[in-house]
Amino acid sequence: MAKTALRVIPLGGLGEIGRNMMLIEYGDDIIVVDVGLMFPEEEMLGVDLVIPDFTYLREHANKLRAVFLTHGHEDHVGALPYFFREFKCPVYSSKLTDGLIRVKLAEHRQLAQAELHVVAPGEAVQAGVFEVEFFPVAHSIPDACGLIIRTPLGPIVHTGDFKLDHTPVMDQHTDLIRLAQIGAEGCLLLCADSTYAEQEGYTPSEQLVGEALRNILVNAKGRVIVATFASLISRVQQVVDAAVFTNRKVFVTGRSMIDNVAMARQLGYLNAPDGVIVGVEEMRNTAPSKLVVVTTGSQGEPTSALTRMANGDHRHITIQQGDTIVMSATAIPGNEQAVYRNVDNLFRLGAEVLYNRVSNIHVRGHASREELKIIQGLLQPEYFLPIHGEYRHLVVHSRLAESVGVPKGNAFVLTDGDVLEIDEDEARVAGKVPASYVYVDGTGIGDVDQQILRDRTHLSTDGVVVVMVAVDKQTGKLTRAPEILSRGFVDVEEREDLLERSRAKVADCFKGAEHYAEFGDINGRIRDALSKFLYDETRRRPMVLTVTVEV
Amino acid sequence: MAKTALRVIPLGGLGEIGRNMMLIEYGDDIIVVDVGLMFPEEEMLGVDLVIPDFTYLREHANKLRAVFLTHGHEDHVGALPYFFREFKCPVYSSKLTDGLIRVKLAEHRQLAQAELHVVAPGEAVQAGVFEVEFFPVAHSIPDACGLIIRTPLGPIVHTGDFKLDHTPVMDQHTDLIRLAQIGAEGCLLLCADSTYAEQEGYTPSEQLVGEALRNILVNAKGRVIVATFASLISRVQQVVDAAVFTNRKVFVTGRSMIDNVAMARQLGYLNAPDGVIVGVEEMRNTAPSKLVVVTTGSQGEPTSALTRMANGDHRHITIQQGDTIVMSATAIPGNEQAVYRNVDNLFRLGAEVLYNRVSNIHVRGHASREELKIIQGLLQPEYFLPIHGEYRHLVVHSRLAESVGVPKGNAFVLTDGDVLEIDEDEARVAGKVPASYVYVDGTGIGDVDQQILRDRTHLSTDGVVVVMVAVDKQTGKLTRAPEILSRGFVDVEEREDLLERSRAKVADCFKGAEHYAEFGDINGRIRDALSKFLYDETRRRPMVLTVTVEV
Repeated sequence: MAKTALRVIPLGGLGEIGRNMMLIEYGDDIIVVDVGLMFPEEEMLGVDLVIPDFTYLREHANKLRAVFLTHGHEDHVGALPYFFREFKCPVYSSKLTDGLIRVKLAEHRQLAQAELHVVAPGEAVQAGVFEVEFFPVAHSIPDACGLIIRTPLGPIVHTGDFKLDHTPVMDQHTDLIRLAQIGAEGCLLLCADSTYAEQEGYTPSEQLVGEALRNILVNAKGRVIVATFASLISRVQQVVDAAVFTNRKVFVTGRSMIDNVAMARQLGYLNAPDGVIVGVEEMRNTAPSKLVVVTTGSQGEPTSALTRMANGDHRHITIQQGDTIVMSATAIPGNEQAVYRNVDNLFRLGAEVLYNRVSNIHVRGHASREELKIIQGLLQPEYFLPIHGEYRHLVVHSRLAESVGVPKGNAFVLTDGDVLEIDEDEARVAGKVPASYVYVDGTGIGDVDQQILRDRTHLSTDGVVVVMVAVDKQTGKLTRAPEILSRGFVDVEEREDLLERSRAKVADCFKGAEHYAEFGDINGRIRDALSKFLYDETRRRPMVLTVTVEV
Repeated sequence: MAKTALRVIPLGGLGEIGRNMMLIEYGDDIIVVDVGLMFPEEEMLGVDLVIPDFTYLREHANKLRAVFLTHGHEDHVGALPYFFREFKCPVYSSKLTDGLIRVKLAEHRQLAQAELHVVAPGEAVQAGVFEVEFFPVAHSIPDACGLIIRTPLGPIVHTGDFKLDHTPVMDQHTDLIRLAQIGAEGCLLLCADSTYAEQEGYTPSEQLVGEALRNILVNAKGRVIVATFASLISRVQQVVDAAVFTNRKVFVTGRSMIDNVAMARQLGYLNAPDGVIVGVEEMRNTAPSKLVVVTTGSQGEPTSALTRMANGDHRHITIQQGDTIVMSATAIPGNEQAVYRNVDNLFRLGAEVLYNRVSNIHVRGHASREELKIIQGLLQPEYFLPIHGEYRHLVVHSRLAESVGVPKGNAFVLTDGDVLEIDEDEARVAGKVPASYVYVDGTGIGDVDQQILRDRTHLSTDGVVVVMVAVDKQTGKLTRAPEILSRGFVDVEEREDLLERSRAKVADCFKGAEHYAEFGDINGRIRDALSKFLYDETRRRPMVLTVTVEV
């Protein structure tokens, strides 16, 4: 009888940033680590979200034992509402992560049916053949964890997103001692965060940011407005601490920032003395020099509070000379234009703007190369699987691992859906499961395909031209002049001549035949003739749509 | 009688990267510095190029005396073919710049009519009341110059794009002595490059890149492929030098690279011993370890040679294990996704890829903060106008100038079209001339407006739905079922039900009236009803277009 192999299947997060999800399968048991979403890339026009492909899990739903979440960021938990439409199983996570997903599931009216469990660091959970222990890691959200997954073949360590930070804000260190114990015991497989595998050296500590923020609040003569990620509770804590030190009040704005601050205070993850965080009325009655505002919009999101301020249409806050804006975040790739447009507009309104190219007011949440080497040194894994990152990050991370001791050939650079099969003798890539992009657009899940995206790209480039012709179904003659409509193509008022000649071109398609049937595909004929004419005239290629009415 | 004032009018390049153009006017004379283009930003859907607004110059064409070009990059010379459609005047530039614009004007069939003059560094040209002297600067293209523009009120220094480089490749230093002489004489106004005004310290010398390239060619066991800007002739020279040192042959690919290399060799800007640069046949017969390829595509341009290699469809070069790809360029903002997609694909094909996050294989062509301070110190201008940069770059550059001696209030942060007026007593912003984005799309210049871009954005988000109804013009009844077509909205084969119900919704719009005239705007009525229905069903908002035929 063939021995059972351990199968590790990343469904997302490899070769892309986001929608992190991994299956671990042994015999009749499957567990899931993270169920994240991805924000659409530039060419995914009109798409709201991208989620992992659940096909394989759907086919093996009877094996599903549990979901384990490493932390509460959208790219690790954001696809849960879509997951719960199809699957039912217990979900295990740390206290803050649990708080965040409860908010999300309540919005989707799924909270009542969900079986959610809070797990403390160091605690272990049995799920089928697996035993899963949570260990704390430092990251840009409190209560982030990695997982020690005990399997019949030995322990897998999954780091989640992490960095080492010897002076973190909320005293949450990456648990190096626990990792060293697993290393001593013998680590079968390490799956580690590759996001900053290109970055030489060490990621600086959050402490640096705390000091920088305090200096800014001490020195600013007017109001200070700090924009950061709504989930970066520790950064909000740093602002509150600096506000207390400088005797300023804190006003919070932006829907997700308000919600997260409320939840974090309730769960004890944000400590603010009474009276420091104030409402609109008190904010209005506080002198600018005694005020600090915490806001969403660090990524230039169009409807966020900071973007509204930059555009002069925030309900409560009007930017003025003397304001200092602190962009306490990095622009995520793809968001740069939106972020810097806000910076430019805030400068135009007369504010002082501090951003990461001119100030040290943000540190990243992921480990740089020297930190990654330490993790390798502590665990000395037999096999290595770099996760979370673009393909190049995975490649450089695998080379780093081999350079510090992972045996040559034991580091696997995979893409989504690849199956890493491990038995007592070896590890190998054994096939592939479906792992397409699943697009969420409006209420549709997975119904936007490549053809629809190609059409949207075509439409976005040169617009659309619609032609309607009414044809006598006997003679094949036009019964009236063709109607032509266009959008996004040319200014039709300026180019009435072009439309006039287009109508003539369309009419020409009906010449030279005595009977309608002779035309064959008349719509195709009109489309080709008109497309060519319009390209010759304008060097543009609008999408041409034709409707023929037989009368 | 009022004294004549000097008017300095930037038409482009302020608050944006690209389309650099400046007018300098005194009495009856106007001269132009640079006539550049800008590549479209993300939201300028389908636009090919953006050029400056010539309205003011059109209204004062009789004053136009000459155009002066600082160097041959597209953002400084690319709009010349559009300029020459309307204006006629002599153009002055350095030898290589002249060579580059001759190629461009010949393509546009404008070379015969153009009056082009080559000016040597140190040489001065009279143009109306102005005398303009070219001085050499170090930049990422040979023969780059700044301008000393003598006016009745004193000299203006315009740096063009520049950096200081004490060990440049082609021995072209920024002429600090000449600048010091102007400083001693008294500089009225300094207009200086702000592109890297955020960057602390010094921009490294090109020499570093030469050393890095040589090391790569010495150590690579296989073929080396270097991607860089086609205009970066000095980088190509460095590759050739390293190839000669390591006894490799050089193969050049990519249309603009081939053209520029040919032109640069002909004009003496690229020195390659006979037999080093080889054609396709000899390239095929050369061992990979004896070969280096120079290619376009460093910005991920979709049809460039490197992108073709990364996609596996380059005619002559198939990427294989053992190849080393050197990305000797920085991703220009907006191009990051395309550049890194190529890097990922090249890794997937098994190549080693060196790019700027993991290697020092590119230096930038613009001055950093310490260099900008040196220029201020040499010139000690009375007035300062930061040029070339996003708004934030102009702001930080003006503060830098004030911090090293420009009198408070004498540094002007302008936006395109602002008129800086200087007389013997003071300088001030005196009005604004038109300076809109002029979009080039196909053969249309300036005919794409905001409405067309809004329509393209709408179309790109959720596609288009076209409704055609035939109505009896007496009774107002539908004479047949409505026809509905869609593109980029939903998969119509999957959602036949939705189309069916849409047809019913449209038919409902015709209920309850006895005569066609009672409907008023029937197209608007259909559009509103169908848009609402489709949004309720799908949470998408396709553009709905309706055509009504009265029969």
